[in-house]
Amino acid sequence: MAISKKRIYEILEKTEKKDVIGKIVDWFIIILIFLNVGAVIVNSFTYASIKYRLILLALERFSIVVFTVEYLLRIWTSAYKYPDSRHPVIRYIFSLMAIIDLAAIIPFYLPFVVNLDLRYLRVLRLFRLLRVLKLNRYNNSLAMIGRVLKNEKEKMFMTLFIITVLLLLASSTMYYFENAVQPEYFPNIPATLWWAVATLTTVGYGDVYPITIQGKILSGIIAILGIGLVALPSGIISSGFINEVSKNGKKTICPHCGKEIDAASD
Amino acid sequence: MAISKKRIYEILEKTEKKDVIGKIVDWFIIILIFLNVGAVIVNSFTYASIKYRLILLALERFSIVVFTVEYLLRIWTSAYKYPDSRHPVIRYIFSLMAIIDLAAIIPFYLPFVVNLDLRYLRVLRLFRLLRVLKLNRYNNSLAMIGRVLKNEKEKMFMTLFIITVLLLLASSTMYYFENAVQPEYFPNIPATLWWAVATLTTVGYGDVYPITIQGKILSGIIAILGIGLVALPSGIISSGFINEVSKNGKKTICPHCGKEIDAASD
Amino acid sequence: MAISKKRIYEILEKTEKKDVIGKIVDWFIIILIFLNVGAVIVNSFTYASIKYRLILLALERFSIVVFTVEYLLRIWTSAYKYPDSRHPVIRYIFSLMAIIDLAAIIPFYLPFVVNLDLRYLRVLRLFRLLRVLKLNRYNNSLAMIGRVLKNEKEKMFMTLFIITVLLLLASSTMYYFENAVQPEYFPNIPATLWWAVATLTTVGYGDVYPITIQGKILSGIIAILGIGLVALPSGIISSGFINEVSKNGKKTICPHCGKEIDAASD
Amino acid sequence: MAISKKRIYEILEKTEKKDVIGKIVDWFIIILIFLNVGAVIVNSFTYASIKYRLILLALERFSIVVFTVEYLLRIWTSAYKYPDSRHPVIRYIFSLMAIIDLAAIIPFYLPFVVNLDLRYLRVLRLFRLLRVLKLNRYNNSLAMIGRVLKNEKEKMFMTLFIITVLLLLASSTMYYFENAVQPEYFPNIPATLWWAVATLTTVGYGDVYPITIQGKILSGIIAILGIGLVALPSGIISSGFINEVSKNGKKTICPHCGKEIDAASD
Repeated sequence: MAISKKRIYEILEKTEKKDVIGKIVDWFIIILIFLNVGAVIVNSFTYASIKYRLILLALERFSIVVFTVEYLLRIWTSAYKYPDSRHPVIRYIFSLMAIIDLAAIIPFYLPFVVNLDLRYLRVLRLFRLLRVLKLNRYNNSLAMIGRVLKNEKEKMFMTLFIITVLLLLASSTMYYFENAVQPEYFPNIPATLWWAVATLTTVGYGDVYPITIQGKILSGIIAILGIGLVALPSGIISSGFINEVSKNGKKTICPHCGKEIDAASD
Repeated sequence: MAISKKRIYEILEKTEKKDVIGKIVDWFIIILIFLNVGAVIVNSFTYASIKYRLILLALERFSIVVFTVEYLLRIWTSAYKYPDSRHPVIRYIFSLMAIIDLAAIIPFYLPFVVNLDLRYLRVLRLFRLLRVLKLNRYNNSLAMIGRVLKNEKEKMFMTLFIITVLLLLASSTMYYFENAVQPEYFPNIPATLWWAVATLTTVGYGDVYPITIQGKILSGIIAILGIGLVALPSGIISSGFINEVSKNGKKTICPHCGKEIDAASD
Repeated sequence: MAISKKRIYEILEKTEKKDVIGKIVDWFIIILIFLNVGAVIVNSFTYASIKYRLILLALERFSIVVFTVEYLLRIWTSAYKYPDSRHPVIRYIFSLMAIIDLAAIIPFYLPFVVNLDLRYLRVLRLFRLLRVLKLNRYNNSLAMIGRVLKNEKEKMFMTLFIITVLLLLASSTMYYFENAVQPEYFPNIPATLWWAVATLTTVGYGDVYPITIQGKILSGIIAILGIGLVALPSGIISSGFINEVSKNGKKTICPHCGKEIDAASD
Repeated sequence: MAISKKRIYEILEKTEKKDVIGKIVDWFIIILIFLNVGAVIVNSFTYASIKYRLILLALERFSIVVFTVEYLLRIWTSAYKYPDSRHPVIRYIFSLMAIIDLAAIIPFYLPFVVNLDLRYLRVLRLFRLLRVLKLNRYNNSLAMIGRVLKNEKEKMFMTLFIITVLLLLASSTMYYFENAVQPEYFPNIPATLWWAVATLTTVGYGDVYPITIQGKILSGIIAILGIGLVALPSGIISSGFINEVSKNGKKTICPHCGKEIDAASD
């Protein structure tokens, strides 16, 4: 088997259009991920999980072997992924994708080390679905969404922080309003957070709601602020996409010298 | 009756402003569609469906005849619709509008072939409402909305895929949190999806909600992510509209020298 | 009292910064509108409406007199409002603001003509609040919001039509899914619309929700489409505002002749 | 201790990157704010508030001392903050941040003046969290969000006013529809506002909803208008961010001739 290390890297990571084996491996892993998602779902049905016990077990063992081999091969070939890095293995192991891949296999191996039943961690395998996002077909769209989210990261975090402060203020105030009247629904501030989140995000399950007048007024203010808080990320993401689109397409001519320049080269 | 094939095509498909017969046919079919929508609604009232049985039956038979003739004429004249196509009939039959038109009449004919009562498929006739969207008056606005949705199709699909992955992750995790405490509401992962959709889309019916602390925390995170997920399509569509508008308006003529300049030639 | 017709028009309609009497009249009418809003609210409390019966009656009669005089004066001076119109009175009477003003006083006069108690139409007086929107201070912002909504009117109507079609399709299908299982909540298609609106707009009261599997799947699809339908008007309005802002501020230099031009003169 | 007045100002307000003492003071106050947030939360648990009574009391007294000293020092050094102001102390005292800081300490001192138990005002201390927003790391993002909100302030207020008018109109009309049938849920117009807010903001708790046909139709219209009202602030904020971004990036240097050009000098 004269498959070079570089060839393995190409098959796993950088599948090009004409690379038939790369495509087969890609699809084989994607199908295996979907089968595992199906297995997690089937496992949640008591009857079916018993009836198809052997098939599910076989699938699990087979997947663990494949995912483990894949994980190890990716570590082994990490030098090609980060050619400029001095410690490519460490860099790869701590990348988001590698952590997700490890999380998918580790619950199987842990019981051999510690005496615990970690089968419910099987759900971690679902995170491997994120690798499916890397499918070639929609790569450009995904990359653009990714770039926009990355560029606007700081503003989104600020929005999240504003939301958190608002939630804390709202639930602390609501606690003082409603605790005396509905101690079972508003027993303390963390429990009141449940109401605050449901209101600010406009989910409104309706299991907990204020009954005092001041509580209802506060609830109304929070709900209206909720509209504003939907507007904030919308505006941030909108301007992010517009920026990204104009970066791609804008080529203007300098009025002084007639040569082409990138207008949005910021 | 010396109405040429081309004339029939013009009447049905490409009604111009001065074409009186074309307008009459257009409005006749649109009124018939609305009458059929009304009939489907009236049929859902037990009492009214019996009282007006004969009128409803007459309307149904009349509509089927008209819609069938219309469908056949559109197939017959499809060569004018797709002048460059080698198989215009096949291309037309598999176009979205033709499938909708067929779905509106097929439930009437099927019982003659197979021994089934398919009357409840009458609801398919409502899809013909989509043809009303093609009304002349708002054609430009509809065309622009259509173009934007088409241009941003890939990004919207990616968003949908991210939503799906998120829903699966959320419902699998929630199942492990809540199943032991509320087995009647969270019996398995697909059933838990019902909660996940209601939360992520911020609908929040309130029939199913978590009661454990970890479940409530997850629910809050999903609800806040829901705000972000409303922002994503908003941003995508916004940038799509802005792009479309700037494409339309960007060809300007300098009022001083009369030369055309591209403000942003994307 | 030598107040000219033109002066009355200026006082009522085109109050300039230094016009003290105009300002006083403006504020007098705005305060009267707010008092009427207060009266409508107080009237809804059984006890208070009896206790303050005389004050409320006095306010009502006084307001009717003022609003009637104002309405008549506006008609009388309408020639100044529409100097180019041949029938300014008719044009004014059928303008939106005049209809609102008439609706605020007509319920008081009608009982003299027809033998009906139309006191509950007092609520129409609240629509006069819309005149408050015309306050000077935020005039520019309101005008811009108005311009954007007017420019994007057609696209917004198309969105509304798409929403209507979607609601009809969703409720007809849901009726066939749920009617057999929950005939009390889904008795007919118009009743099912109540569920469809609550889901598509993500309000989700929780009084009506599907319990069959196919119904829940449909509900989930409609809820996710609801996210998309929030994105559509957001995108339309966003691009409208951006267009409006760029129209206001954009002055560029033509690269061929060096003179200033409006880049966004579309 | 020869710490100059100016040095104190620098430590408190304008911490530069290399100022170690400034950083320590900053972080000390931020940690104290978070500890106070924690204390407010712990206080809401009856059992914990008794068990940790002494620690909570000590923390409260310590925080009051620190926050009071900080407040007084900020007043003392206010001349450096507003160098151009003739009354910097007064200007500082009435700034938003100073009012928040005062609100955090005043509930402790008031009982010495008036004979009231104002301990529940402790919740005001949470507002100090807003100072955490001023952390250096995300300063740029926060400043931009702040600038956008400030620029679009007028339009946002107009939107809020439109929302208020709409809420009043909706609840007055709904009161006349539902009061006779559900007097316990729709007893008067202010109580009906609770329904109106929950519907327009699409929260939809589900505790109050119309049961008459005309009430349900109104509810549907309000819910659909709610979608439009989410679109309005989204559009406003979007255009605000785009404007802000383009302002930042628009000064570009032509790479060929070195001259500066304004792509859009707004």
